[in-house]
This record gives sequence, C-alpha cells and structure tokens, in this order.
Amino acid sequence: MKATPAGALPHIVIVGGGFGGLWAARALALAPLRITLIDRSNHHVFQPLLYQVAGAGLSGTDIAAPLRYILRRQRNVTVWMDEVTGIDLDARRVRTRRRSLAYDGLIVATGSTDTYFGHEHWAANAPALKTLDDALVIRRRILSAFEAAEREADPARRRQWLTFVIVGGGPTGVELAGTLLEIARHTLPREFRHAHPGDAIIHIVEAGPRLLPAMPARLAAIARRRLERLGARVHLDTAVTDVHAMGVRMAAGAIEARTVLWAAGTAASRLGRALGCELDRAGRARVEPDLSLPGHPDVFVIGDLACVTQDGTRVPGVAPAAKQMGRYAARALRGRLAGATPRPFRYRDYGTLASISRGFALVHLRGLQLHGFPGWLFWLFAHLFFLIGFRNRLAVMWNWAWSYATWQRTARVIVGHDPAAPETPISDQG
Amino acid sequence: MKATPAGALPHIVIVGGGFGGLWAARALALAPLRITLIDRSNHHVFQPLLYQVAGAGLSGTDIAAPLRYILRRQRNVTVWMDEVTGIDLDARRVRTRRRSLAYDGLIVATGSTDTYFGHEHWAANAPALKTLDDALVIRRRILSAFEAAEREADPARRRQWLTFVIVGGGPTGVELAGTLLEIARHTLPREFRHAHPGDAIIHIVEAGPRLLPAMPARLAAIARRRLERLGARVHLDTAVTDVHAMGVRMAAGAIEARTVLWAAGTAASRLGRALGCELDRAGRARVEPDLSLPGHPDVFVIGDLACVTQDGTRVPGVAPAAKQMGRYAARALRGRLAGATPRPFRYRDYGTLASISRGFALVHLRGLQLHGFPGWLFWLFAHLFFLIGFRNRLAVMWNWAWSYATWQRTARVIVGHDPAAPETPISDQG
Repeated sequence: MKATPAGALPHIVIVGGGFGGLWAARALALAPLRITLIDRSNHHVFQPLLYQVAGAGLSGTDIAAPLRYILRRQRNVTVWMDEVTGIDLDARRVRTRRRSLAYDGLIVATGSTDTYFGHEHWAANAPALKTLDDALVIRRRILSAFEAAEREADPARRRQWLTFVIVGGGPTGVELAGTLLEIARHTLPREFRHAHPGDAIIHIVEAGPRLLPAMPARLAAIARRRLERLGARVHLDTAVTDVHAMGVRMAAGAIEARTVLWAAGTAASRLGRALGCELDRAGRARVEPDLSLPGHPDVFVIGDLACVTQDGTRVPGVAPAAKQMGRYAARALRGRLAGATPRPFRYRDYGTLASISRGFALVHLRGLQLHGFPGWLFWLFAHLFFLIGFRNRLAVMWNWAWSYATWQRTARVIVGHDPAAPETPISDQG
Repeated sequence: MKATPAGALPHIVIVGGGFGGLWAARALALAPLRITLIDRSNHHVFQPLLYQVAGAGLSGTDIAAPLRYILRRQRNVTVWMDEVTGIDLDARRVRTRRRSLAYDGLIVATGSTDTYFGHEHWAANAPALKTLDDALVIRRRILSAFEAAEREADPARRRQWLTFVIVGGGPTGVELAGTLLEIARHTLPREFRHAHPGDAIIHIVEAGPRLLPAMPARLAAIARRRLERLGARVHLDTAVTDVHAMGVRMAAGAIEARTVLWAAGTAASRLGRALGCELDRAGRARVEPDLSLPGHPDVFVIGDLACVTQDGTRVPGVAPAAKQMGRYAARALRGRLAGATPRPFRYRDYGTLASISRGFALVHLRGLQLHGFPGWLFWLFAHLFFLIGFRNRLAVMWNWAWSYATWQRTARVIVGHDPAAPETPISDQG
C-alpha cells in the first residue's frame, strides 16, 4: 500500500456520501491522511425521513445538508461532486466522469438503488423513493393527483385520481401509506370543494405473506391492523404483474389508479459490477469478514453495497449498519496502512423502528417491543437525535410540532416538471 | 351581467393567484358570489423574497403556500389548478386547457413574465427569476458553479466558474448580487480546499445610467457604493449584445463567465393578447380608470398585466400596487353587479425597499429615506409582516436569525435536473 511518493500522506478515496461513506470520513478525522470523498450529489440525506419529504411534511432542506458543510472543519477531506464511472483495482485508480485519481486505500459506499426486477419501464408510472429528487417527484405526483381529482367532473375518473397503490409492504411502503392516509383524511379535506380527499383509497400490495418482514410477526400484525383501521387496503401474497398509466395488474384482479408508488425492490448500486468480485442476487459484493474485497486488502466495500452474513443471517441494509461499517472500515484501513490485520466486522443490532401514523410507531429492540404512542415517542426522539446538525434538528422539531398541533403539512408546494407524469404537466401561462 | 340562471349566485372567475388575484379573492370573502380562482401552479409565492430562495438562504416552502390552504375557510372560492388558454369576451367564457367556464365577472391577474427583448434563446444561458421553479434553477446554477470551480485544475477555467454576471441593475439584480457576494465571501470559503470562493467576481451590467431606477438618485448611489465596497463590479450605460455559454458580450468588451443571471426585462403575461384591447410596449393592457377593459365593464385587468397611469407616471409593477388593484377590482365588481358605477382607482405609494446585504437595505417612503442598518431593520420587519401565514413568518424569522448568527445558508442543497445548464449534469451513479 505505497502508491504515494515518499513524504506525501497516503490518499484515501471514499465513494459515496451516505451513512457509510460519511461515517468513514468522520472516523478518519484525526488521521494523517489525504481523503477525497466523491458523491454525485452535493448533500448527505437523512434517508429515514425521506418519506416525510415525499409526504410534504418536511422540506428537502430539513433533512439534507451539503457534504462539504458537514465536513468543513475536517481539513484532511476534500469533497468532490462527481460521478465515479469505474475502478481499476490493479492500477489503484478511480475513474470519474472528469478525471482519474490514484488511491492508497479505497472505501466504496455507493449504497443501493431501486429495482423493478427486470421491468424497469414501470419506473415512469411508479416512481421509487431513494433520493431527495425522488421524494420531490413523489410529492408532486401525490399533490397533483388531488388537484386533478378536484378538476375532474366524471365520478369514475375522479375515483381513479383518488386511488393510490403502494407496491411493497416494507418500512418505506408502510410509512408512505401512513403519510398518504393522513394527507387524505386530515390535511386536505377542508380545502377541496368538489373532490373529497377523505374518500381516497390507499392500497398496499405486498408479494410476501406479511408486512414489515424485518419486524417480529406480532408487530407486523399490529401495523396491518392499524393501517386497515385508518382505511388502507392491504393485499398480502399478491404479486404485481404489470404497472401502467392507469393502475396495476395483479395475479388475481387489477386496481385502477392514477398514482402508483414503488417501494418493492432494492438492488445494490451499479458500481458493484466494477469491483470484479462475486455478487449476490441483489448485486451486492461478497466481501471478506473485514469488509475488504477478496484479493484487495486496500479496498473496502460497506453499507448497502456489501453482502455481509453474520451468525447465518444477512446484515440488513439499514442506516445503523452502514454507519457501523463506515467506522469499522476507517479503523481497519488505518490498521492496514500501519501493517496490522483487522479483526472481523461485527454488526450490533440496535433495533428496528417504523412509524405508521401520527402518534403510532413500532419499535423492536433487543427483546423490547413497543407500539402505539410510546413507540412513537421513542421513534420521534431517536430520529431527532440522529439527524445531522443542530439547525436541522430544531427545524424538523418545529415542523413536527406545527403539524401535530394543526394537522397541516408545511411543504405542500408543487414545483418542477415531471416529464413522466401520467398527465401532461401544465406549462407556462405567462 | 346576467349570464347566470335565476337563483344561482353570480360566478366570478379570477385568473392568477399572485398578489392581485389573491387579494381580489380575499376581498370578496363575504360576498354572495361563486368564485373560481385559476392558477397554473398550486401555490402563492411571496415574490419579494424569491431571490433569497435562489440564494439558498430560504427554502421554497418558506415563502410559498398552497392557494387552497390560504383560502380554505373562504367557502365561496373554488381553487382550480389549470392553465387559461383564451378568453371569449362576447360569450363571457374563459377557456382552460381542460374545460370552458362561463363567468358573470372576470378579473385577469396573470402578472408578468421575463423577456429577453427578442433574444429568447439567451434564456438557456441566463435564467431569470420569476417563479419558485426559476429560483431553484438559479440556486442550482450558483451552487454547481462553485462545485465545478473546486474540481477544475486549470486556473483560467476556474476563474470562469467563479465569475458571475447579473444582467440588470433593478431591485432583483441588486438583491441577487448582494446575495451572491455573501455566499462567496462568507458562507462558502471554509468549505473548499482548492477553489477560493472568496475570489469570485460578481458583475452587474445595467443598460441605463444608474442602479435602482425606482429609487431616489441619492439612494441608488449609496447602493452602488455599498455593492462596490463588497466587491461587485458595476457597469452602467452598458448594454449586453450577446449571451452565450461562456459569458456575455457588451458594446465595449466581453466578460468570460459560466454563470449569467437575467434580471433585465419584464413583460406582461401573454394572456394580455387574448384581451383584444390596446397593449403598451411591454404588452400591458391599457385599461379604463376603473381598471376595466374598454367596452367590457365586467372584465377587470389588474397587477403587472395592467397599464395604469396616474398623475402622469405609470403605477409600478410591485406587490403593493397589485394588492391595491385586487382589492379595488373586487369592490368595483361587486358595485357593478349591484348597478353602481365605481370611482376611479387611486394607487397609494407606500414606498420602495431594497436589500443590499446583511444589515444593509434602502428604504424610500414619502420623503423618508433610510439606508444601512436602520433601513435593513425596517426592511426585515416589513417583509416578515407581509409574509402570508404565521408559520411562514416564524420559519423565515428562524432561518434569518440562524443565518445572521452563523453566516450559514440553510437551503444549500442541489436538487433537480437542469437540462439547459452549461455543463452536462451528473447523472445516476447508483
């Protein structure tokens, strides 16, 4: 590991500014290294609250901050907004769209993306929720559907605009459904004169036998009961066979809906294919117990891009796992540079949270199970605590307090142009 | 004015939800009328602070609120998100992209749009600031230029990325320049390792002999001195003859810059041409002293779309004038429906404000002239006072206090895709 001229500090490249990459960079704060953090966007996003941006409860800037702002005091880091297009493991170089960089150590943390399991053309009619841009697209679709329903005189067509299908019953699907139910039942009704947002129908279509597969069966059943009581229609063991502009088709039957949201599939980032190693079915890199790439002890793969198995089960693709891997890889890399052999990575499971609706969340941690209001209080403080930045915390707290008191959502502003929207967008009138 | 069947309430259509249209709708709150407010967006924007969204100091949702939320308690109003494509004055019908509506009274308040004086192809390289979408485009351009400068190794090309040209020295141009200077000099420097945002050069190019033509000459000179002391280069009596991806050409000389912002021209909304009346050079409708369309006492044209002359000078295209016209037209229309003849519209000038930088603004009202910190305090409270909505006021106050204490800007997140950006945007890497 000596690609760097004598005297110069070793150069570490970190690809990706999500939880994995950012925590790795922070863990190297005091190390005598030169670090380049590359991300194709200029910001870190607090992904667990992305669905609240989609649901117009929070503004995008409440849960995102520029990477170079977060790392401004860490003088050994250069932040680089660019896209990595390839990795040359033998020459130890990372290729971006604009240049090529030599590294002494590499941490790849490009995370996951959505997959439609070979039906990628469904994306136009069923946007997924991975980035801040995705959240703004979904917000626009949801709000525009209610606007279209208000304009529509024909009852059958109005019903199509007031029908929403969420494909996937994992945490994202459940949280989106809860948000949509609240918008429809509580936020909007008084504002419409013709459409009745309260009549909106929200379907959750899940291919597996239950919601929230990462939660204990008891909590998943509670979530289902809660959602059904709020008015959602939950279809289990139901695979979607087609998504089109007017709805979805399933093995048995179809749903007519103008808004379909995709919360069903996650695959590893495409950069995994550039690693030249064995990938699992979801495209994740099979790494060594120390998270390094087989045959390349100077390259670490972490977060959602890494396939790590521990005690027979896979480490889940959640934020705490990515952070732990980021911190671990930073330490392991420093050790390697000093000639040491790192001990294997161990994931510590601190539990799983899922919010269903205002005042109702599920919590599962080490034997403790909470639901309802106590779960929600726990969820609330956990999320505030882990949000990056004092200002963001206060802003989010304030938005939540305001929404709680008024049922209002503060970010209900439709901006941007959505070329793939089912209806031609309304263009310039000025 | 009796297009409505006996027994039904008269139907008033208001086109445009800016200051003019919204104030007209509010002034009709207690009237026994059916009102339809049509806007192509779902929100009202507090335009005087749009430049702060462009400058990443405020989030779009801080200064915008859904029209149907603002009017939720006014049961005689239906809000309609749609685009008006034509008006049939004889049949008394408004045509939208989706349907046609009969009216008994019509208020046209579609405001103004940007003009490039016949060089509309400049728009791609010099975005203007009229809507929330425009503000997000400009924010993206500004932040992306600093990111590009950080990546650029060649000093000459880096200088092009750190050079900004603002075309137009009116309030928008001056406010954008002040914002850009603060971002470059105070917000960003500590975060960059290669580029020096503090070296950024901001040019203001104004075709006329002075900045801020609506202000007294003394205040305009103070504004110029202040901007130059902050580091701006002010070019007066200088017409731009070409705008391209690498900068601007002027009668004498050229400026190489990758970011050009347009604050030079305003023309009336295109809907003016559908009114079949005489238009002035900027496309504004020449209306009667009671703001009605000549020959059509049931149609009122207000705000930036109306050409109103009073005591020999034109009523300016500013928010207070639009609000006054909106309230007046509402009263006049009610009078007409009752058979009365309205007294002519009188504009009351409450003064002009312009903010230059943190702690420095200009105020001109009825003989009183303020500048510097006292002007800024006045500006601050005036803008907070007129912002719509208690929540927005608190959110903006909080953002301002935070920025004031830390020099930070809370909305520095690049989202969305800008097909017209000078550099190919960075696409999906996942």
